[in-house]
Amino acid sequence: MTEKLSGACLIGQSGGPTSVLNASALGCIEAALASDHITKVYGAAHGIKGVLNDRIYDMTLEDPAELAFMKYTPSSVLGTCRYKLRDFLVDDTDYKRILDIFTKYDIRYFFYNGGNDSMDTCSKISAYLLQHGYECRVMGIPKTIDNDLANTDHCPGYGSAAKYIATSCMEIYRDAKVYDTGSITVLEIMGRNAGWLTAASALASYKGMGPDLIYLPELPFDLADFIADVTRLYEKNGDVLVAVSEGIKDKDGTYVSAYFNDLSKGTDAFGHARMGGLASSLAGFANTKIDAKVRGIEFSLIQRCAAHLASGTDIEEAYLAGKAALLAALEGATDKMVAFKRAPGKDYECLTKLVDLADVANLEKKVPREWINESGNGMLQPFIDYALPLIQGETGLVKEDGLPRFANLKKIMTRER
Amino acid sequence: MTEKLSGACLIGQSGGPTSVLNASALGCIEAALASDHITKVYGAAHGIKGVLNDRIYDMTLEDPAELAFMKYTPSSVLGTCRYKLRDFLVDDTDYKRILDIFTKYDIRYFFYNGGNDSMDTCSKISAYLLQHGYECRVMGIPKTIDNDLANTDHCPGYGSAAKYIATSCMEIYRDAKVYDTGSITVLEIMGRNAGWLTAASALASYKGMGPDLIYLPELPFDLADFIADVTRLYEKNGDVLVAVSEGIKDKDGTYVSAYFNDLSKGTDAFGHARMGGLASSLAGFANTKIDAKVRGIEFSLIQRCAAHLASGTDIEEAYLAGKAALLAALEGATDKMVAFKRAPGKDYECLTKLVDLADVANLEKKVPREWINESGNGMLQPFIDYALPLIQGETGLVKEDGLPRFANLKKIMTRER
Repeated sequence: MTEKLSGACLIGQSGGPTSVLNASALGCIEAALASDHITKVYGAAHGIKGVLNDRIYDMTLEDPAELAFMKYTPSSVLGTCRYKLRDFLVDDTDYKRILDIFTKYDIRYFFYNGGNDSMDTCSKISAYLLQHGYECRVMGIPKTIDNDLANTDHCPGYGSAAKYIATSCMEIYRDAKVYDTGSITVLEIMGRNAGWLTAASALASYKGMGPDLIYLPELPFDLADFIADVTRLYEKNGDVLVAVSEGIKDKDGTYVSAYFNDLSKGTDAFGHARMGGLASSLAGFANTKIDAKVRGIEFSLIQRCAAHLASGTDIEEAYLAGKAALLAALEGATDKMVAFKRAPGKDYECLTKLVDLADVANLEKKVPREWINESGNGMLQPFIDYALPLIQGETGLVKEDGLPRFANLKKIMTRER
Repeated sequence: MTEKLSGACLIGQSGGPTSVLNASALGCIEAALASDHITKVYGAAHGIKGVLNDRIYDMTLEDPAELAFMKYTPSSVLGTCRYKLRDFLVDDTDYKRILDIFTKYDIRYFFYNGGNDSMDTCSKISAYLLQHGYECRVMGIPKTIDNDLANTDHCPGYGSAAKYIATSCMEIYRDAKVYDTGSITVLEIMGRNAGWLTAASALASYKGMGPDLIYLPELPFDLADFIADVTRLYEKNGDVLVAVSEGIKDKDGTYVSAYFNDLSKGTDAFGHARMGGLASSLAGFANTKIDAKVRGIEFSLIQRCAAHLASGTDIEEAYLAGKAALLAALEGATDKMVAFKRAPGKDYECLTKLVDLADVANLEKKVPREWINESGNGMLQPFIDYALPLIQGETGLVKEDGLPRFANLKKIMTRER
């Protein structure tokens, strides 16, 4: 498996966007453009859907200087999708189509950049192509702000979201304490099943300017405990800042957000069900028990696309992951995902390794119980030690007129030529 | 009025925080510390409430190097308040107390940093002290993200909030377009009566990555027109990004947010009224008419305290306003607010001027009708020309461990010494 394979390369982006998804694509594309064995560099419009629909961009036609702006451009320049391939033993329609398109463009290198669903897509395509004797090296490039991929120390995208969350928490902490009248502020942070993002708020607490209470979905949430925690701190400090994961559930597995979304009752003047945000619902509920000024704040999707505050470390590692995938594929690797490990020693250094796609697909990595305090409402030092290196360094984003200068690609379709 | 007056100086911060409120305080404090005529530099804890409660910090005891961090520290290091003084002809209790405290500390220079309510406070105190023969120079320093103060070109705080809003709009624009499935995203931006902040989203549109529709509170909002606008653009582009001011009202003067907060109907499982955000309510309402993925995003108070993305221009101008207030008072000015005007000529240059407090107190400046397009759903070039210079330049905020290094003052109370 070490012979050099000649042919075209295709990269697709998949799933929820991040601040550094394009940095990974750039790492892969720039390494591909530099390789003598890669005849063409293509990008799929909206991930695997672009393959199925024959919507393929010719990245060779882009100006390399403009491509370079991708490193600091958030979201996805190619477009992503949420499309789950069926098992090809059940229905191979999509796979036949993929093989046709790969054959049409002589695609011998396929890179898919996404989360665990995308690694599943990758793994299935790899197996199908192998079974049909079509030689193609299929590689996964990790990406998710949720940081929940298995068998990797962390995921590109997480450090930038964590930096945004920690910084915003510090700023909100300053803001929330401005009056002498007391307040309870609840912050809602992304992460349905894994609490990595919510835990990142503890980096602000580590600086003395963060949430007093942090609730992750890893542990059952109890409303009575929550009220007791908030009451105790409000009486002591006159101010409480709380961070909750959007995905907190009670001991019966019911989403806490569902408590507040009784669709049979809550409708607006037009009869349309109102889906209250968890943060404002919890803040409102606290207000029924504690007479204080309350506020709910949802970080919403800004937390995943705030490229202006991306972590320099995250950007470089994301780029590295894309480049490492390309270089490993050139060397013969296939059916693997590039993963991260830390170099031994005190100082943080991130190294890449290759893991089997099957060992990542559809798995979820949670925050270890021993990194959460005993009461289940705060983070411990091992988490800080883990996360702090990931948010170091600033973005190289260029500003024009005081605003971000993002990549502006031509995105020429192969069909249009 | 040009003789040098010797005595102590007191500065208070008031109202909602901004990213540059502390920059103004620093401009004033540093100039005061440098003056031979100012014997002491005090800061009031929580504005005028600190005066009334004799909670006064001795700023002379702070390390100047630590004070310097105030320039890039958001919110208010002294604390603010929302406290409206009564007319002293009706009830002079508070005024007597203020005169006692001013006499106790020999305060001959008083600076109040806030919005139009604070200028009202300033104006009343000035009149009372004058009437009682207590010589004190009373100066207002403007501050409000709302940019709604009269008789000034713009207000410190606005440029930074505008830069945050425009940048976030660009990032959300990139994020919202990531799938090929279409979406309608509604952004809710601060500003109850004046639309300056919501208009700032047009700076993103100017860069080709901003809201398609922008609704300010200056014009009556019509739900049917909104749906027609959104439908038309959704059918054309498959994606619609909308920015609305939190304060939009219909032609009868009813807040649109009130449409969606029918308290008799909307309750959660605990019977507590749910106050849905305007953004998600409007997005939800659009969804009853248009079959699309919808999302509401509230910029919430992050838009007023995101110091990491403050405008360098705004920071310098805020500092200048504080310094100019101190220098003007030393020269004999009183009962004035420092205001901004633009230097003549093509290139942007901000100059200060002095305006009577009475010409600012309790007044509101709206966005001119001629800067809004005819349909009332977008901004025109004169607004861009006005706002773009205000968001130029970056903050000098220092990072430690990848996170902001904010000012950490000793805040020693005069009483505690």
